[in-house]
Amino acid sequence: MGAEQPETIAAIVAAHRAGTMTPAETIARTYQRIRDYNDPAVFISLREEKDAIAEADRLAARADATSLALYGVPVAVKDNIDALGFPTTAACPAFSYTPTHDSTAVERLRAAGAIIVGKTNLDQFATGLVGVRSPYGIPRNAIREDLIPGGSSSGSATAVGAGLVPLSLGTDTAGSGRVPAMLNNIVGLKPSLGMISTAGLVPACRTLDCISVFALTVDDAALALSVMAGPDQADPFSRDRPLGPLTQFPANLRLGVPRNGQLIFFGDKKAEAGYADALKRWTALGADLVEFDLEPFYETARLLYEGPWVAERYLVIKNLLASAPDAIHSVTREITAAGARLTAAETFSALYRLQGLRKIAERTFANIDALVLPTAPTAYTTAQVLANPVELNSRLGTYTNFVNLLDLCGLAVPASMRSDGVPFGITLLAPAGRDALLASIGRVFHAATKLSVGAKGVAQPALAALPAGGGDDIPIAVVGAHLSGMALNGELKALDAKLIETSKTAPDYKLYALKTTPPKPGMLRVEAGKGAAIELEIWSLSAAAFGKFVSAIPAPMAIGTVRLADGRGVKGFLVEPEVLGEARDITEYGGWRKFMAETA
Amino acid sequence: MGAEQPETIAAIVAAHRAGTMTPAETIARTYQRIRDYNDPAVFISLREEKDAIAEADRLAARADATSLALYGVPVAVKDNIDALGFPTTAACPAFSYTPTHDSTAVERLRAAGAIIVGKTNLDQFATGLVGVRSPYGIPRNAIREDLIPGGSSSGSATAVGAGLVPLSLGTDTAGSGRVPAMLNNIVGLKPSLGMISTAGLVPACRTLDCISVFALTVDDAALALSVMAGPDQADPFSRDRPLGPLTQFPANLRLGVPRNGQLIFFGDKKAEAGYADALKRWTALGADLVEFDLEPFYETARLLYEGPWVAERYLVIKNLLASAPDAIHSVTREITAAGARLTAAETFSALYRLQGLRKIAERTFANIDALVLPTAPTAYTTAQVLANPVELNSRLGTYTNFVNLLDLCGLAVPASMRSDGVPFGITLLAPAGRDALLASIGRVFHAATKLSVGAKGVAQPALAALPAGGGDDIPIAVVGAHLSGMALNGELKALDAKLIETSKTAPDYKLYALKTTPPKPGMLRVEAGKGAAIELEIWSLSAAAFGKFVSAIPAPMAIGTVRLADGRGVKGFLVEPEVLGEARDITEYGGWRKFMAETA
Repeated sequence: MGAEQPETIAAIVAAHRAGTMTPAETIARTYQRIRDYNDPAVFISLREEKDAIAEADRLAARADATSLALYGVPVAVKDNIDALGFPTTAACPAFSYTPTHDSTAVERLRAAGAIIVGKTNLDQFATGLVGVRSPYGIPRNAIREDLIPGGSSSGSATAVGAGLVPLSLGTDTAGSGRVPAMLNNIVGLKPSLGMISTAGLVPACRTLDCISVFALTVDDAALALSVMAGPDQADPFSRDRPLGPLTQFPANLRLGVPRNGQLIFFGDKKAEAGYADALKRWTALGADLVEFDLEPFYETARLLYEGPWVAERYLVIKNLLASAPDAIHSVTREITAAGARLTAAETFSALYRLQGLRKIAERTFANIDALVLPTAPTAYTTAQVLANPVELNSRLGTYTNFVNLLDLCGLAVPASMRSDGVPFGITLLAPAGRDALLASIGRVFHAATKLSVGAKGVAQPALAALPAGGGDDIPIAVVGAHLSGMALNGELKALDAKLIETSKTAPDYKLYALKTTPPKPGMLRVEAGKGAAIELEIWSLSAAAFGKFVSAIPAPMAIGTVRLADGRGVKGFLVEPEVLGEARDITEYGGWRKFMAETA
Repeated sequence: MGAEQPETIAAIVAAHRAGTMTPAETIARTYQRIRDYNDPAVFISLREEKDAIAEADRLAARADATSLALYGVPVAVKDNIDALGFPTTAACPAFSYTPTHDSTAVERLRAAGAIIVGKTNLDQFATGLVGVRSPYGIPRNAIREDLIPGGSSSGSATAVGAGLVPLSLGTDTAGSGRVPAMLNNIVGLKPSLGMISTAGLVPACRTLDCISVFALTVDDAALALSVMAGPDQADPFSRDRPLGPLTQFPANLRLGVPRNGQLIFFGDKKAEAGYADALKRWTALGADLVEFDLEPFYETARLLYEGPWVAERYLVIKNLLASAPDAIHSVTREITAAGARLTAAETFSALYRLQGLRKIAERTFANIDALVLPTAPTAYTTAQVLANPVELNSRLGTYTNFVNLLDLCGLAVPASMRSDGVPFGITLLAPAGRDALLASIGRVFHAATKLSVGAKGVAQPALAALPAGGGDDIPIAVVGAHLSGMALNGELKALDAKLIETSKTAPDYKLYALKTTPPKPGMLRVEAGKGAAIELEIWSLSAAAFGKFVSAIPAPMAIGTVRLADGRGVKGFLVEPEVLGEARDITEYGGWRKFMAETA
């Protein structure tokens, strides 16, 4: 076995489609690796190998097999998510039950051709970020044995990190899908709230719970998310938030970084240096780093710990706390029992404060596409956490706890391997609905790190080319006041437009300076080859936003078809010729930006 | 004084603009009416008449006075909403404070030219639907003296009903802006949550509170709402929910009516008959009545009363309950003190159930534009309510209590005057954001009742004509192959476009026959007056459909602004001039249809 084998979802599905490897062979390889890895703490229950292979064979016999998005992909599922054929324990044997249905997420994975091989260990009731709070043992960190695996999705993260499966499901209420991703050098995708149905999930905090994805690459994680995303009548918290298409790395990406002095690493200089290096990489990729105030986000995190949400955890195990308290892990029991003492008045007070913090976050993101933060401020060994279980756990949530309270989506991506062999990672955060943006930039960042993925030295595959355009979006070419940084660019941003490309027209256009306020150019098509190639930017808008944008454009501007230098036609700005009598021909400048720079 | 005087906001503003009445005269008339009406329980504090008249004079002296939407309109404000110059009491003298700012709603009214004359009585802390729970007395019902005024916005509703002011602000958490509207034969508009900022409002339940509008007509109420609506940084619960334009009564309106047997009137046959008559009127207006299951809405209402939200009321007066419990009305005190005993766990349980009920409501509205329900199941006398204050109050909320929990907007409209002299009204309910739809249909219904408005026998004014188009829709002028019956008209129809008008351009355009397949004309703007008036049709599309339509238009066509003969500008087809070298000038035909008819 070596790095030449298909390791990513993309490679495995391609191999199954091409017939170079059968799903049954992939499943057999998974079981062999599980045996070789020999960590009984990863899985709480493992399916019989022969059953999984039989399912793989049945799948391969299907006429539509090769059309399935996850054709023959072995998947591990965190053991607080129902999957038919396995008990659901939430890492508490006394709580265990046998589900009568797949959770919606698992059902959708299976419908896409995935094969569930087992249920993974977790911090009991998904309470914790450490992975040491389980009666089923502590899964080994896949990278460095003395480190905690991270939690609460400990088994799912280590299973992907160790290369046992290329995909696993975690959950993420306060960081359980991100912290263990960093600690195992893999990708952890925490979608927007409600994007993946939580029907069939043992709740932690029902108003904040997400099912999350672990994979080796961002593209793999995004593919799995696209399979599971979608509204579900069985989950009243589910929303219609499909994953839009991934796009090219935007030319004017604005990433938020905390103000000087606001970051906390608990003295871990290597983590601090890792973060600084990651920021350099973002800058090299062309992103603008914009400072923002992290304090309201910290305040939100404190609200989670000091506020009423632990009452949600209490509701989940209220009966067990009354009937068999000793069946609950002592740390978990102590944390959760406190939820019984909180009042409704405290709850509403916290909800009011949260609403104010949400508005502050909203304003932060008015000017920033995404935040880039350390995934966790540092890493701890199992020995350290066992000696100080609550405080160190809480530290690990520094950059994750506030995320679901603020309805953000998140993507944890490996950033570097420290000299001490500890993986360091960053997390991208943005308002709910920007999941595709995070994946679109996270994939480029991850590729740029040239890190191997997981623990087995698997090289990252070359980034797949993206299909041009996508979804319902309509590209529009702008040549004047709507260019980045120009007077009317804010109109595009207000409509959530994204810059997708800078380019030039075919050499068939003339540009004129109009006497408008603010100053604008007018572009006119002339006889082919008799004009110049004019610099432009292509922005992408939803159909409705495009409609509103066009509707608001005043005369003498019009939206027609602009021919690009490479022959493509895109919608773009033209001018009515009637007004050009008094206008100065500025075609020779080759674009509005150059004209403004040289004449201003 | 008689019905010939301007009584509605529209008539008063028109009189001020025309100069047939001055704002000072209107203010003086208001004070005279207040003296004549002689009910000391309506206002908790009344401004000095001379101050209000001085403000009216200053307003009239402003150069922009006639452009103000509420130019010189006298307004009464419920005394739980801050207005500079008045104490805010919430009908509890011990709670009273002197605000240092206007509430945002009052500030926006004043900016639009309204003149605040006083602060009105209410059920203390807006707790109640009856209007009898105030140390400032019980305002007289404007229609029938023995009836309760309704509450909690008792003074605001009776002030409009009695014709003292044409506009007042109420608040509405569980029906306080609707029940008293019915009982005083006026319109009560409860906007979508967050549409009007609640900054400067004494909260009842902060997560559910709305500022509401009382007026004599739906158009008046909608005008006042449009002035106040809009996001506000000072209120974290405010949302960007502008009121769209009112539209014509839709041809295929689907109104939800409860299943047989689900309505409750507490034995009041006259109310039951009033509701049946109202449904007949809706049918006569062309609406389709569709049965729906009211039970989940009732369940939501029970959740409000049995659930945790009373803890929000408790938070508001917690300090007063501790320091001076006797300062609080005994019924209010008893209800509110119960809020202290509720737990966080009970709160989250209720929020989970509510989320499920919201999804059920969402599905109800998938197929229904709005619900039509009685505003209240019956009416009570003051004597009846004083004898049974809690149960009868609760009955009055049968059709109002669930509305804000489900994030619906509501419009209470008078429906009939019963033979016993008790007014009966209906309420339209729809998901948040459909405020303009409710107003668009409610105004037509109210006009069809031919009821006089308020208590003074004022005849309803004729319905004002609406501007063409509306909502989010974007009109587009077509001049060629997209005209009705022409080759590409199907493209418009496939996008659900509606023909709204036929018209002509200003005489500034030339029309050319292009050598395209199918044949199309190209329209070019030339020097003003040097072209011809070209026949066109205006179609209306949703923003998304418009975006798709524009996106699909091939070169050399473009969408710009077309000037119409009457001076309006609408989006429409233009042509790039570069292609016109070979094209035939057909301007003399005055339009594509005529050219095709004469040359085909």
